[in-house]
Amino acid sequence: MSTASQDKRVAAFREYVKKMVSYGQALAILNWDLRTKAPRKGVEARSELLGVLSGEHFKLSTSDQMAEYLQALQEPDTFAALDPITQKTVLECKKEYERSKKIPPDRFQAFVVLAAQAGSVWEEAKAHNDFASYRPYLEKIVQFQLEFIEYWGYKDNKYDTLLDMYEPGMTVAQLDPMFATIRDKSVNLLDRIMASPHKRDTSFLTQNYDVAAQEAFSRYVIERVGYDFKAGRMDVSVHPFCTTFAPTDVRITTRFNPNDFQTALFGCIHETGHAIYEQNISMDLFGTPLCDGTSMGIHESQSRFWENMVGRSLPFWNHFYTDVVKAFPTQLEGISIDQFYYGINEVTPSLIRIEADELTYNLHIMIRYEIEKALIDQKIEVGDLPRIWNEKMKEYLGIVPDTDANGVLQDVHWSDGSFGYFPTYSLGNVYAAQIANVLKKELSDYEALISAGEFTPIREWLKARIYQYGKMKSPNELLHDITGELGNASYLVDYLEKKFSAIYHL
Amino acid sequence: MSTASQDKRVAAFREYVKKMVSYGQALAILNWDLRTKAPRKGVEARSELLGVLSGEHFKLSTSDQMAEYLQALQEPDTFAALDPITQKTVLECKKEYERSKKIPPDRFQAFVVLAAQAGSVWEEAKAHNDFASYRPYLEKIVQFQLEFIEYWGYKDNKYDTLLDMYEPGMTVAQLDPMFATIRDKSVNLLDRIMASPHKRDTSFLTQNYDVAAQEAFSRYVIERVGYDFKAGRMDVSVHPFCTTFAPTDVRITTRFNPNDFQTALFGCIHETGHAIYEQNISMDLFGTPLCDGTSMGIHESQSRFWENMVGRSLPFWNHFYTDVVKAFPTQLEGISIDQFYYGINEVTPSLIRIEADELTYNLHIMIRYEIEKALIDQKIEVGDLPRIWNEKMKEYLGIVPDTDANGVLQDVHWSDGSFGYFPTYSLGNVYAAQIANVLKKELSDYEALISAGEFTPIREWLKARIYQYGKMKSPNELLHDITGELGNASYLVDYLEKKFSAIYHL
Repeated sequence: MSTASQDKRVAAFREYVKKMVSYGQALAILNWDLRTKAPRKGVEARSELLGVLSGEHFKLSTSDQMAEYLQALQEPDTFAALDPITQKTVLECKKEYERSKKIPPDRFQAFVVLAAQAGSVWEEAKAHNDFASYRPYLEKIVQFQLEFIEYWGYKDNKYDTLLDMYEPGMTVAQLDPMFATIRDKSVNLLDRIMASPHKRDTSFLTQNYDVAAQEAFSRYVIERVGYDFKAGRMDVSVHPFCTTFAPTDVRITTRFNPNDFQTALFGCIHETGHAIYEQNISMDLFGTPLCDGTSMGIHESQSRFWENMVGRSLPFWNHFYTDVVKAFPTQLEGISIDQFYYGINEVTPSLIRIEADELTYNLHIMIRYEIEKALIDQKIEVGDLPRIWNEKMKEYLGIVPDTDANGVLQDVHWSDGSFGYFPTYSLGNVYAAQIANVLKKELSDYEALISAGEFTPIREWLKARIYQYGKMKSPNELLHDITGELGNASYLVDYLEKKFSAIYHL
Repeated sequence: MSTASQDKRVAAFREYVKKMVSYGQALAILNWDLRTKAPRKGVEARSELLGVLSGEHFKLSTSDQMAEYLQALQEPDTFAALDPITQKTVLECKKEYERSKKIPPDRFQAFVVLAAQAGSVWEEAKAHNDFASYRPYLEKIVQFQLEFIEYWGYKDNKYDTLLDMYEPGMTVAQLDPMFATIRDKSVNLLDRIMASPHKRDTSFLTQNYDVAAQEAFSRYVIERVGYDFKAGRMDVSVHPFCTTFAPTDVRITTRFNPNDFQTALFGCIHETGHAIYEQNISMDLFGTPLCDGTSMGIHESQSRFWENMVGRSLPFWNHFYTDVVKAFPTQLEGISIDQFYYGINEVTPSLIRIEADELTYNLHIMIRYEIEKALIDQKIEVGDLPRIWNEKMKEYLGIVPDTDANGVLQDVHWSDGSFGYFPTYSLGNVYAAQIANVLKKELSDYEALISAGEFTPIREWLKARIYQYGKMKSPNELLHDITGELGNASYLVDYLEKKFSAIYHL
């Protein structure tokens, strides 16, 4: 093929991909509006509209035209001659094409219908603490996962195929030892914390905190941390999230608890971690599927890094403590920074994952990981779940849910078949600790910068090493380039050990 | 063709149209977001996205597939067997198809580029009072209108072809006598008002009005009037507008002037008039191009009716006066309802159309109508515009703009080629008066209802006669069915004469 006609084909492919990506952007905007602004009566029409445009998006990503482009551009000599962005774009499109095409359309359609029903049934079941009514739906969801894995194929472990959707390249073989380390060390550390006599009063954290003051303070902090409000905005939604229309328009949401400022503040810093990642992806990648975080785990590493490792650190509050006292003068009157720091880091085994502290959070994930793996390996059955859930809660956290609603029914994830997603939350913590370890070595004044409220050097370092690349580097590549190794949980457990030993005088 | 295959074809056509309409909905949402919520840096990416999706929308409405559907469904026996909604849908799609297809794509593209440039040049020209720099662009815009009219075709008058885009069926032959009546009677009435010794102090209207109080009061009033906030929302934008995603999601915007509550309040009632129309279109029409106001003029009749004939009437303030005094107690202290009513209806010749009172507004429109018609008839040249504009201002309003920025350069409409649009503003007033005349006869307690704040019977009457039909009836059909005649300006001039004679003791 001549260079000229090759160039023409590449341009046409890139144009096609840009159109496909445009549908994704439009869907993201319509979803954002649905979740933050749409009036109640408009929900039904919006859902229909989302269905129509999702269908168009799906058609573009699985069309014969796409197949033709992929076949032509994957031809070895042709592929070798492509620029790196187009090469990666071809590979991403191929992955999506194959994942979609391998499932017979009628089976996928059946799954979509089931998932929609399961979502409603789950809501009811949770509200009425009625696992039995949810069980047959969850059984079918699991059956679909097993069926889809057969279509998609797998090597060593069926669960790997699910993991790969959220964390490309991640395997059970890699995860098992990491998660065993986290589980064992966390359980041990938790035992010692629970036995520690060093406990302080934290009741000042649960009193009336004016919502307007919470919002103003949260905005102030995240803008200082580096969220660019000229390329984003913050709104209220039931479930906080971060969504990207372009690196120049990355929006976050939060929710306010009038009796606890931590929900909004740390939620905002968490979403800001996601948003800073997206705002700093190179605009060269805009209009391709590469203009996105490289994996859920790496994405979560950034939200967790900014929320916990920075936002819940002592240097951070050395900088912001006078500000928070100014924001809530009566509530924090007479509270020392030490007591405040202890309060926002207090460890308490609790039933609900999304309310868990930095240490016990990972134990909630371990329970879900172990259950998911065993379900996909067909070693346990859906009917066993409430019992297994409660046993593991007892074993790892020392408490047993009073109801299934506060236990196995608490999360939405399984209702839409998102098996393999939960592990990325703890992977985020693992990666965050690994990356922070290098960051601290290279920015030797790391803690001093945070104490001084100077976040730009940290952000710039992360931009240079992670953010700018989008999906140009796989998570393993990225991690290896930064740390010289793959996922390694020892940095996380060391960090937790050190942090909580100091707080609890262990 | 068998009934079964005919049914199948109709279903496929309706599905195709629904998809096309879905793009329109998505575009409306993306536009709303751009104008109310989008961060500054996100504007460029959004404009690109709008371009991509507009292109897709255009392709669907002008595709070979659409041509096939239209040809098959227009076949007389086939067409006769269609249900009324599908029949009207075919006619609407045909209209759009032909309008788009008749212009060579390269000429349309050239026009789009020119209009984008002209918009920027106009902004600069207005800011610097520099008509000369805008003139060559406006000349080209007019040339394009003339060229497009040749493609589209025309019968009696070239300008009819432009009018028909905004007011289907409207002609110069119909408009000329109506507008001559409005112009002559309004000029005469204005002369008598200016000569009236009965003038009152209105300085209480221009003082500091707290924006939050303005917003609360505006929301209160429009909800009472009938805007359904469960099927809509109100936000702030530079230029107020109403936009519809579905009858279940019709949004309005406003802007606040901290020194004049009238901008927001009457702006809100105006947009509410548009919104009540859209919220009450039959859901049977949703997913077709018929789920929309039937014309700009009829749409404007509803915004003007609610804003001026209801919102600026004495019965309306008999009901709301205690409320407005409660909202602005210091500003309205000692102001009688009569003085207030006079103030919000004061007639003052002014330079800027969008700030004009109910009477002089139409004179601003007459100037634009006469100029547009003469330009399209090639009786005047763009270069003559500043002089002609100022002459007509002098003749009709008795004042001459100090600058072109406050004269011929004030409106954006010509920059994007919207010739034929301006007349619909005054047509709205004409229609509103005609419809109100019947409404008052049929709801004999009309004024008492307004005084009692009972707007539901009025809204229901309008829903039954106008709103529910969407585009199922043409503007002329609709008007004839309600009033027994076509557009007739005498009701408007009678209404204005009566209202302002009372206010100014003429």
